[in-house]
Amino acid sequence: MARDASRVEAFSDAVIAIVLTLMAVELLQFSPDAPNGHGLAAALAHEWRSYLAYVITFGIVGQVWLTHHNMWRYVCRVDQMLLVLNLLLLMFVAAIPFTANLLSDNLRGAAVEQRLSAALYVGTVLGEALFFNLSWWWARRRGLLHPDLDPRLAKAVARRFLLGPLLYLVAFAVVFVDPILSLLAYLLLIALYLIRGPGDLPPAGREAAEPG
Amino acid sequence: MARDASRVEAFSDAVIAIVLTLMAVELLQFSPDAPNGHGLAAALAHEWRSYLAYVITFGIVGQVWLTHHNMWRYVCRVDQMLLVLNLLLLMFVAAIPFTANLLSDNLRGAAVEQRLSAALYVGTVLGEALFFNLSWWWARRRGLLHPDLDPRLAKAVARRFLLGPLLYLVAFAVVFVDPILSLLAYLLLIALYLIRGPGDLPPAGREAAEPG
Amino acid sequence: MARDASRVEAFSDAVIAIVLTLMAVELLQFSPDAPNGHGLAAALAHEWRSYLAYVITFGIVGQVWLTHHNMWRYVCRVDQMLLVLNLLLLMFVAAIPFTANLLSDNLRGAAVEQRLSAALYVGTVLGEALFFNLSWWWARRRGLLHPDLDPRLAKAVARRFLLGPLLYLVAFAVVFVDPILSLLAYLLLIALYLIRGPGDLPPAGREAAEPG
Amino acid sequence: MARDASRVEAFSDAVIAIVLTLMAVELLQFSPDAPNGHGLAAALAHEWRSYLAYVITFGIVGQVWLTHHNMWRYVCRVDQMLLVLNLLLLMFVAAIPFTANLLSDNLRGAAVEQRLSAALYVGTVLGEALFFNLSWWWARRRGLLHPDLDPRLAKAVARRFLLGPLLYLVAFAVVFVDPILSLLAYLLLIALYLIRGPGDLPPAGREAAEPG
Repeated sequence: MARDASRVEAFSDAVIAIVLTLMAVELLQFSPDAPNGHGLAAALAHEWRSYLAYVITFGIVGQVWLTHHNMWRYVCRVDQMLLVLNLLLLMFVAAIPFTANLLSDNLRGAAVEQRLSAALYVGTVLGEALFFNLSWWWARRRGLLHPDLDPRLAKAVARRFLLGPLLYLVAFAVVFVDPILSLLAYLLLIALYLIRGPGDLPPAGREAAEPG
Repeated sequence: MARDASRVEAFSDAVIAIVLTLMAVELLQFSPDAPNGHGLAAALAHEWRSYLAYVITFGIVGQVWLTHHNMWRYVCRVDQMLLVLNLLLLMFVAAIPFTANLLSDNLRGAAVEQRLSAALYVGTVLGEALFFNLSWWWARRRGLLHPDLDPRLAKAVARRFLLGPLLYLVAFAVVFVDPILSLLAYLLLIALYLIRGPGDLPPAGREAAEPG
Repeated sequence: MARDASRVEAFSDAVIAIVLTLMAVELLQFSPDAPNGHGLAAALAHEWRSYLAYVITFGIVGQVWLTHHNMWRYVCRVDQMLLVLNLLLLMFVAAIPFTANLLSDNLRGAAVEQRLSAALYVGTVLGEALFFNLSWWWARRRGLLHPDLDPRLAKAVARRFLLGPLLYLVAFAVVFVDPILSLLAYLLLIALYLIRGPGDLPPAGREAAEPG
Repeated sequence: MARDASRVEAFSDAVIAIVLTLMAVELLQFSPDAPNGHGLAAALAHEWRSYLAYVITFGIVGQVWLTHHNMWRYVCRVDQMLLVLNLLLLMFVAAIPFTANLLSDNLRGAAVEQRLSAALYVGTVLGEALFFNLSWWWARRRGLLHPDLDPRLAKAVARRFLLGPLLYLVAFAVVFVDPILSLLAYLLLIALYLIRGPGDLPPAGREAAEPG
């Protein structure tokens, strides 16, 4: 049984790891319209938005991994539907490098293109968050979670998963004020999210009452 | 012994995970002949066939993973031939992003090119399905499956594996009517396939009588 | 202890899996000098050497994985040097898509370029084979293999590992006759190699006397 | 518990494996300004700096894997902060192919561009080293290491982790003398580093007193 869940984890890890690394390939480069005539320093400076997008998107995908890691610790059985929900989650995660690249390419563009690419970016992030929520809801409903998991903790995790999409929508909305501010809002959110909440790993030192 | 099978699973997972992610890189982009002069929205709209191809190919490769996951739960020993059959399966899976990209690039082309690229696409999918069939047949014949596996279940899985290629050929044949309809037929097939059949994970709640 | 070896296996598997998949990206494409004006069928036909190179290189790298899988079943402890030898092995494996691509691009070129690219290709394959030999020699010498492994089997595996590079050199030498014949010689070798030899997985049915 | 650490290892392995392989893709190619008119041999000779950069960067990233492997053998529990520190480490590792490519492209450039790209390269390597130090410091402070680990060994490992960044800075400084000499200094450092120090795997033959 545990073996089933661990194969899902390994597969999801591989997809997330590749997404993290491909993002580096897509975002850490000179765009074709860089003013190459002005030397390396100028070309790099011209690309700073891409490098900021790399850091933020690494933060978002890194947090996807953390959340996946924390959530799947409690899953002790899988069924066909949970696997399908996890694949749909990964379909959105795999699209993040594309939308992140689109966003960083359009940060300098017209307001309408900034907003469209920001909407696509938040769309992939929301799609990923949606399937986290559905996975957790399905696993709770179908009794796939570890029997020793406190139902109140399971409920608190569900509430926390609902919060994520709302916060991302706020960060997205800032694009109507300023696209760079919007990226910084994502960064702030990720930092906030890393403050421990229900379902996270317990702080070390205190003996973990975790299942498994 | 179990260790042998688990290394095969981990390796196959890695290949499939990379294929899923590379597909995003190949399909989620602007093609060089996009009418760049008309703004981001027009350029994205122009590429909708690629995005549909991404969703469908993610569905097909995701289903390859599901099938691999379900099948290998029953394999408790491996021999050289089973490893070779699995490598040949992966050779076709690794070619899917190429043929998917070829297909999505030629959906707007002449009828002959639509059909040729659809034939190549279904060719890689059929190659993959062929080696699933051969793997299962070999594993059954050589006694590599878990001894507690009900022979009737093993036979039902074999029948189900034979059905897959037939359905894919039907979806391919629709390309002679309309190439977009053909893609939608694939999508329908994937959805149908996800309805639980023999060899799938048992629905949660009912106690699993699975080996291992 | 076993955990150390299993992490090395997982890491090597990931590198080999990525190499297999990237090879598809590098070899399965239209080269920039394809006669695009003549339709899809002509363009694909023009690239058949690349597709042959894909199949052969998939065969070679697939066999690297098989050999790695078979060899590491006997390794029950690792030391720093064995890890370094394994990393050097992976350095050559990771270079194979590059030299395979170089070879397939130059199969149509002048005789001197055919031979140079064939030499580079066989160079990466020989480098990989060299570090298999060194890994096995080191593991035997330092007592890192499973204590129950028959020393005669360990010696037979060592002899078999020495044979590989010699056969690859023969396939390379055929390039002086004809480059396509040389590729076919590789294909023949891979097929020969898959016939079971010492150190391979025992055929199923007969009870495995394998360690671990 | 051990399961948590092993998922972190598998995930980090996947990222490092992809970085190693992508590096081959980025560094092992013809740069667009290669004098194509002069045949394959001349083009390859023209690119020797890239191939040297491949070997050295493979050495550096290979050593990251070795260090990660050696360090995480002692980690028996994880908390949220350790996971975040590990993700930040991976963020720098994933950026290494980009800075390595930048460096190899600029080795022929003006002195100012050589130094800038060398500084960016050493920056990613130092960032990676910094988060190794922080991870180890955090794991020691929070009692996440194996209880049987000798505190003197833990301290010796911490000292060794501090030495790494200093040595990399020395190799970087050589760029002010000659950029190729600087690359060779990295190569020397990697070789030195592989000589066994505290926290490495014990040499085989001597019974390992390792935890876990």
